[in-house]
Amino acid sequence: MSQGYRVAILGATGAVGAELLAVLEQRRFPVAELRLLASERSAGRQLSFAGTPHTVQAVTPEAFQGLDLVLASAGASLSKTWAPQAVAAGAVVIDNSSAFRLDLQVPLVVPEVNPEAVDQHHGVIANPNCTTAILVTALAPLHRAFIAQRVIVSTYQSASGAGARGMDELLVGTRQWLAGETVVPHTFAHPLPFNVIPHIDTFQSNGYTREEMKVVLETRKILGDSALKLSCTAVRVPTLRVHSEAVTVEFGRPVTPEAARQILAETPGIEVIDDPAAGRYPLPLHATGRYPVEVGRLRASLVFEHGLDFFIAGDQLLKGAALNAVQIAETLIDRQALVRPAGRAPALT
Amino acid sequence: MSQGYRVAILGATGAVGAELLAVLEQRRFPVAELRLLASERSAGRQLSFAGTPHTVQAVTPEAFQGLDLVLASAGASLSKTWAPQAVAAGAVVIDNSSAFRLDLQVPLVVPEVNPEAVDQHHGVIANPNCTTAILVTALAPLHRAFIAQRVIVSTYQSASGAGARGMDELLVGTRQWLAGETVVPHTFAHPLPFNVIPHIDTFQSNGYTREEMKVVLETRKILGDSALKLSCTAVRVPTLRVHSEAVTVEFGRPVTPEAARQILAETPGIEVIDDPAAGRYPLPLHATGRYPVEVGRLRASLVFEHGLDFFIAGDQLLKGAALNAVQIAETLIDRQALVRPAGRAPALT
Repeated sequence: MSQGYRVAILGATGAVGAELLAVLEQRRFPVAELRLLASERSAGRQLSFAGTPHTVQAVTPEAFQGLDLVLASAGASLSKTWAPQAVAAGAVVIDNSSAFRLDLQVPLVVPEVNPEAVDQHHGVIANPNCTTAILVTALAPLHRAFIAQRVIVSTYQSASGAGARGMDELLVGTRQWLAGETVVPHTFAHPLPFNVIPHIDTFQSNGYTREEMKVVLETRKILGDSALKLSCTAVRVPTLRVHSEAVTVEFGRPVTPEAARQILAETPGIEVIDDPAAGRYPLPLHATGRYPVEVGRLRASLVFEHGLDFFIAGDQLLKGAALNAVQIAETLIDRQALVRPAGRAPALT
Repeated sequence: MSQGYRVAILGATGAVGAELLAVLEQRRFPVAELRLLASERSAGRQLSFAGTPHTVQAVTPEAFQGLDLVLASAGASLSKTWAPQAVAAGAVVIDNSSAFRLDLQVPLVVPEVNPEAVDQHHGVIANPNCTTAILVTALAPLHRAFIAQRVIVSTYQSASGAGARGMDELLVGTRQWLAGETVVPHTFAHPLPFNVIPHIDTFQSNGYTREEMKVVLETRKILGDSALKLSCTAVRVPTLRVHSEAVTVEFGRPVTPEAARQILAETPGIEVIDDPAAGRYPLPLHATGRYPVEVGRLRASLVFEHGLDFFIAGDQLLKGAALNAVQIAETLIDRQALVRPAGRAPALT
């Protein structure tokens, strides 16, 4: 174990899988053994990690034997199938899907915000929805200082929120559109090139989408504040990477943009980019491929006595997915929690 | 006069100018004579109206002699120069620029909302900012029924909000980006293809842009409610036409999505498109070239006791500019106000 951990990536060939490989390598995560797991269809593909080719294996119950850690990013239904088996085999699972996020026995963690939550795990730690992770990284320090009461979020979410297929569909569709050809959507409900689509994930009976309700419910859980009032409008825009969010917050205590800016500047995981006169504010093209959540356009609310408006942008494949997952793994190591606690009932049986 | 009115378009060769020609023709506005005015640079160009070629003239003080109506869409500084001269020559000016919108002597009009305001004109009637016109068309009937208290708007504004040049820059830049070439912005502060830019017009000392403050101040004036609390985040997105807006409203009276939907369905200028399960909601590509403001995604607010969230999309070159201007002209005719009222001091001398 002193050489490192035996790690598997479930969903290694997806958009987040590729980022997981890159982030593990960039951050020199102590990997003793790496197994790349995916569907039968992707088995046999070769992916490079730390200069060494690794062959993708089809996921089977036996594939989890002898592992310390599984980073799962293969969608909710596959996580529901495989996470309990990985935990039963003795691994700790960090799951990027929505399968267990609201399970009361499963910690939902953004390491800058609630690292201590990992201590309570029963084998699975959930990685939040991408839009939530980016929002809560910026919101949490402001909430601690000024006590958020109401949060209103409108999102500008990129095509890769729907995976590599979403990115391909935007690129191919844009070329078709420019050539005067018909753009036929598959991944998205409508053509995305030169359009915006106020529809991400499925609609719920209250008129909100699942994506919007994930932001509401997951933010409450991560902040540990079940009374916090949040609303979200989730909109797909024709960008390739990075989710941006326009955020309005009413606080319980007096707040100024200057005080908020100072707190955010001292917060790990945040980069304050807020010099609008110089054309500097959060931007998807700037945030692409970068770790920090960019925060800017900080200004006093015009609708709340104690309130702020601001704009954030974060790479949803990194802080919204792969980076946060690896940070959770690092937190588990730091807190000596990368072991299935003996004596605790497995959460998922 | 029974044959129609002597009309000039100032800024005939711009993006809004082209739409003004189209809308006057589509709506069979009673035009007896049409003068197309533009800068010296555009003089001599031929544009077609009602099947007849018209030659663009350079604007001069003499160009306004004998006119009944000037539809001005050439920017604020040109309006400040030419509108007083047109009024002095006896014409009524409908001005699409920001020059006079907040002038207390100048009505600011959306005909579905405050048609009676035209009666008080002193020669100039102002056409609102495009984002404002689209917002207020949807907001006004809800405000009348349920009394809006707080309004929070996040916008998704298209390239053509910056005129024909903005549209060209997005198209050319997208082709360059796809070819792997560097995209150099001119009209926009940053490359717009595959990006979103939270910066429209210049920044004010309060951290809001002029665009955002136009939405705040103009909406209050049109609704005749100077106490209404509004906030806006204005964001440019890589679409060609149509501005979309995510809107959250707190009302003073109880409200339901059903009641709001029914009121909106009966409001001229609005098309309720709100069947999300069938993939039907407002969309830029659908609203392009169409007159109505599309309203959908109506749902109960999660942050206000009496509140609604909704999403709107409107063609900002039509309801946000040319259509609204022609509707103002029609309103002037209907209310017998297309004459400089004798005995009133000119507003602009």
